[in-house]
Amino acid sequence: MNKDITTDILNEWLDNVRPYAYDGQVANYIPALARQNPEDLAVAIHYIDGETIEAGEVEATFTLQSISKVISLALALMDNGEEYVFDRVGMEPTGDPFHSIYRLEQRPSKPLNPMINAGALAVTNMIHGDTPDEKVGRLLTFIHEMTDDQSISYDREVAESEFESAFLNRSLLFYMKQHQIVTGSVEETLDAYTKQCAIELNVCQLAKIGALLANGGRDLNSGRRIIPKHLARICKTFMVTCGMYDASGSFAIKVGIPAKSGVSGSVLASLNGFGGIAVYGPSLDEKGNSVVGLKLLELLSNRYDLSIF
Amino acid sequence: MNKDITTDILNEWLDNVRPYAYDGQVANYIPALARQNPEDLAVAIHYIDGETIEAGEVEATFTLQSISKVISLALALMDNGEEYVFDRVGMEPTGDPFHSIYRLEQRPSKPLNPMINAGALAVTNMIHGDTPDEKVGRLLTFIHEMTDDQSISYDREVAESEFESAFLNRSLLFYMKQHQIVTGSVEETLDAYTKQCAIELNVCQLAKIGALLANGGRDLNSGRRIIPKHLARICKTFMVTCGMYDASGSFAIKVGIPAKSGVSGSVLASLNGFGGIAVYGPSLDEKGNSVVGLKLLELLSNRYDLSIF
Amino acid sequence: MNKDITTDILNEWLDNVRPYAYDGQVANYIPALARQNPEDLAVAIHYIDGETIEAGEVEATFTLQSISKVISLALALMDNGEEYVFDRVGMEPTGDPFHSIYRLEQRPSKPLNPMINAGALAVTNMIHGDTPDEKVGRLLTFIHEMTDDQSISYDREVAESEFESAFLNRSLLFYMKQHQIVTGSVEETLDAYTKQCAIELNVCQLAKIGALLANGGRDLNSGRRIIPKHLARICKTFMVTCGMYDASGSFAIKVGIPAKSGVSGSVLASLNGFGGIAVYGPSLDEKGNSVVGLKLLELLSNRYDLSIF
Amino acid sequence: MNKDITTDILNEWLDNVRPYAYDGQVANYIPALARQNPEDLAVAIHYIDGETIEAGEVEATFTLQSISKVISLALALMDNGEEYVFDRVGMEPTGDPFHSIYRLEQRPSKPLNPMINAGALAVTNMIHGDTPDEKVGRLLTFIHEMTDDQSISYDREVAESEFESAFLNRSLLFYMKQHQIVTGSVEETLDAYTKQCAIELNVCQLAKIGALLANGGRDLNSGRRIIPKHLARICKTFMVTCGMYDASGSFAIKVGIPAKSGVSGSVLASLNGFGGIAVYGPSLDEKGNSVVGLKLLELLSNRYDLSIF
Repeated sequence: MNKDITTDILNEWLDNVRPYAYDGQVANYIPALARQNPEDLAVAIHYIDGETIEAGEVEATFTLQSISKVISLALALMDNGEEYVFDRVGMEPTGDPFHSIYRLEQRPSKPLNPMINAGALAVTNMIHGDTPDEKVGRLLTFIHEMTDDQSISYDREVAESEFESAFLNRSLLFYMKQHQIVTGSVEETLDAYTKQCAIELNVCQLAKIGALLANGGRDLNSGRRIIPKHLARICKTFMVTCGMYDASGSFAIKVGIPAKSGVSGSVLASLNGFGGIAVYGPSLDEKGNSVVGLKLLELLSNRYDLSIF
Repeated sequence: MNKDITTDILNEWLDNVRPYAYDGQVANYIPALARQNPEDLAVAIHYIDGETIEAGEVEATFTLQSISKVISLALALMDNGEEYVFDRVGMEPTGDPFHSIYRLEQRPSKPLNPMINAGALAVTNMIHGDTPDEKVGRLLTFIHEMTDDQSISYDREVAESEFESAFLNRSLLFYMKQHQIVTGSVEETLDAYTKQCAIELNVCQLAKIGALLANGGRDLNSGRRIIPKHLARICKTFMVTCGMYDASGSFAIKVGIPAKSGVSGSVLASLNGFGGIAVYGPSLDEKGNSVVGLKLLELLSNRYDLSIF
Repeated sequence: MNKDITTDILNEWLDNVRPYAYDGQVANYIPALARQNPEDLAVAIHYIDGETIEAGEVEATFTLQSISKVISLALALMDNGEEYVFDRVGMEPTGDPFHSIYRLEQRPSKPLNPMINAGALAVTNMIHGDTPDEKVGRLLTFIHEMTDDQSISYDREVAESEFESAFLNRSLLFYMKQHQIVTGSVEETLDAYTKQCAIELNVCQLAKIGALLANGGRDLNSGRRIIPKHLARICKTFMVTCGMYDASGSFAIKVGIPAKSGVSGSVLASLNGFGGIAVYGPSLDEKGNSVVGLKLLELLSNRYDLSIF
Repeated sequence: MNKDITTDILNEWLDNVRPYAYDGQVANYIPALARQNPEDLAVAIHYIDGETIEAGEVEATFTLQSISKVISLALALMDNGEEYVFDRVGMEPTGDPFHSIYRLEQRPSKPLNPMINAGALAVTNMIHGDTPDEKVGRLLTFIHEMTDDQSISYDREVAESEFESAFLNRSLLFYMKQHQIVTGSVEETLDAYTKQCAIELNVCQLAKIGALLANGGRDLNSGRRIIPKHLARICKTFMVTCGMYDASGSFAIKVGIPAKSGVSGSVLASLNGFGGIAVYGPSLDEKGNSVVGLKLLELLSNRYDLSIF
């Protein structure tokens, strides 16, 4: 395990990558995201041995957005088993944007993977719970366990704002309801999904989740298994094949670390035998990935030879 | 104007085509349609001079389903003008099934024409009226004017049943709402649309509408203009290029009469200088067109050389 | 039959539409087309009674390009019968550009209609003849019969130039060869096709072909049947549903006359009971249709109420 | 490094998976492939320390087919640099079958990755060499270096047979030539490509190539660098994201070892810190992957915990 990285190095790198923030744009489809400061940058590393190192605006919180897809997948797999989940959602990467619908028109009309919106919505639909709040409550409990932090919740304003404007996700859900990929109320599934996306963390908390995945799903301190090893592995696999939207392939080549990004500008990375890395920088490139997050992870990977390939 | 057709000929032809009813299937996605009797066949011709001729179960009523798309288009054009309507819905035929969504993902994401579901939903959304019932009420008034029959209404059971199961149409509507093709409430637009599709007529009433279109939008008796001539022409043009789903091209070649079909098994045809023809036969081919309706119109067109081409 | 149109009117209209030539661009993918003068405009009307009227650069010749698709279709139908042809090429319009390939990947992988390139190449492949020159010779003979003009031939420079650069058409042909839509040599079929597209006419000759189609395939003078009536009708039907590339639907609405355009800027129109109209104006809109051709036909149709709808 | 695997275990596993050969079908699009015996199974492991272990018909040779795409990519990257190559071929996985063409119609029309046919053809087009034979000669020299075996060549019958019937690959090449993705003669590129696909190896030779990739591109004995480390890494990354056709995602989840398959039924796998694995079993599943190869690799990965995730 490479532990030569110092706080000084991280700070220096943050300074180096800060100008790139202006190459992208903060997500602006809802006010709460549009208010993010493109200069708020933060990075945290949570080593597998429990040690941590961080730099930047580490207190800044952000909503998980698409990063939550990894966590909801883990819970849905634990709730339903692999067979049930993968009967309804595929395992294949696509070259399509995350919001794309046209593939659903091909037969069988199931989403190609759980990292595109259609697949993630189907996954949330599968999480056990009679109500949206019960589903979200179970997701939060799951995150509390992983982070050992009961204070984590979701941002109501973001959740409501996304819920109001989520016409495309409603379109995807109704399409899947027509084809029996999802069941029950579209509005309730969307309610759970937008709350899940609005779960709020900082980079230190997020890096800890990455470390737990890197540790095969076991808690770093207690060694208690929170996610079965083979399910943690499935999550990390999807992070490689589909984690960075339709830039996953180039990210795998340039960085080579399992990672999942969200439109809040956050990235969760997890590296077996090393730990978790979380980056926050709300300025996004045209694919929806944090400009600064990508730059930082590329620097880290190249300098410390972290690619899994 | 060819007026050699007699009731005897129509009856003989109905007998000839009746066996073909078993080559297709009655629509079964809602109970009310599934209950239709595949042997219920009817045909009516309403000549442009007012004379009528009919055969078969002429008292049988059916719901307009997709035939209503022609009528709602006429009303939306009268309400909003051509420019407004065609800014939101295209004029081009597609080779796609009527329920297809993938084209909306191409830019600009507007429906290719008003005869596919996406386009028809957008058209209904444009009809003036503060509530679904006001829109439907205006459509009914419009039909009452065209048929000179105030008794025509919609079938509540069919409308409700379609409304309940219309997941795909909700998907299309939300997709279009995302892209500002439709405005306002999706549920209300769908409410109006499913009621519009459930408007109930018999072949005699429907043939009269065809005659009015053939007469350039003027009432056959009074000569009063109910639809401006250029708008009636637009409707007939779409009936040729997109009226028979993704079999419009082959219908144009084999029959060559402007026509629009509905999944209730009804077909509305309109021929300038001749009049209107309506056929009912609920057994559908795999494209969603009345098997018997197509056969009868092909016989008529070939025998009396009715093709416009 | 409306015969109020005078040479003076045509000349006046040519002057009116001339400025629109600068809204489009002359095709430039081969030098011979790029050399065309955007101000060369011509129009000819050949009435069904044999009378003619014309204006503009009526001596200017142009290559038929896609207009030849209508003529090759007629010959292929006469050579092979409807069943054989339509087993290999569909009857449905598409909303796709003429060079599009992706639909071939849908099953069954046959071209949707004979007016897109894939379909037209398959049609040329079906024309009887052991060599490309025999096929083209038969096409020329057919055109000589229709125009009563033995001098018509093809432009070798254009044919060779198109043959050299026809990578996309080779791609379409090989795709269809893989799926047994076409047989034999791709290069030979392409040789015949590019020569067919390079057949050179002026508006007077072209208008005569339109008149013959309008006359149900019979020679206007002798009354001799050159094309069976039902096959002439098929050609005119495709001119309506697919004749103006992916602007066929809007052309049907705005003009409503069966017409086929070519990238040389020429348009062939044919109207039953009226005659043939040919327009030449090499400046093209973004769909590949003559800007001036469309304008002139729209003026004519609206002023003299020529729409078939 | 796990070295508990014994010849006995491999033999036992071959016996266990042999029945699965009848769940698939030997490729039959050319006679030489159709002649393969579905019961010919072989596996070889070449550890990174140079030790080898093997079982089954290890003398049986097979043609590389799509496995050659990894090797030609390495050579093209060494010949042209990353920027040149990735300007012409993308890095993103697709959910499409390997022979798919429709994505090329999206803009920019470059192949999504070098493992689908379009991308691999573009890669072969880039390999330096004035003639097809010079390109193939350089590829063979490259393979001779990697395997330390000068005897390796290509199967002329297979190459010729594939060349004759490669209509779809010609279609892809001409499409890319139209869009300047490939240059020069389509027939020559195809000649080089079909010869490259016909390169003949056995599992021992193939496993050695896998070991060299696992060793970062350095020769296991001499330590001499044959492929720059970052280029070897790129190859292994594509093996994960796109190596198993449109089953790459599920293979990553079930097996998690970088691997590339070919329609001859062979699979090349490469695992950093472990070595190379080659499997041969010509019976293919519906995606084109060796049924037995997948089974064996899944057994190996699960039993010895070899997944990289």
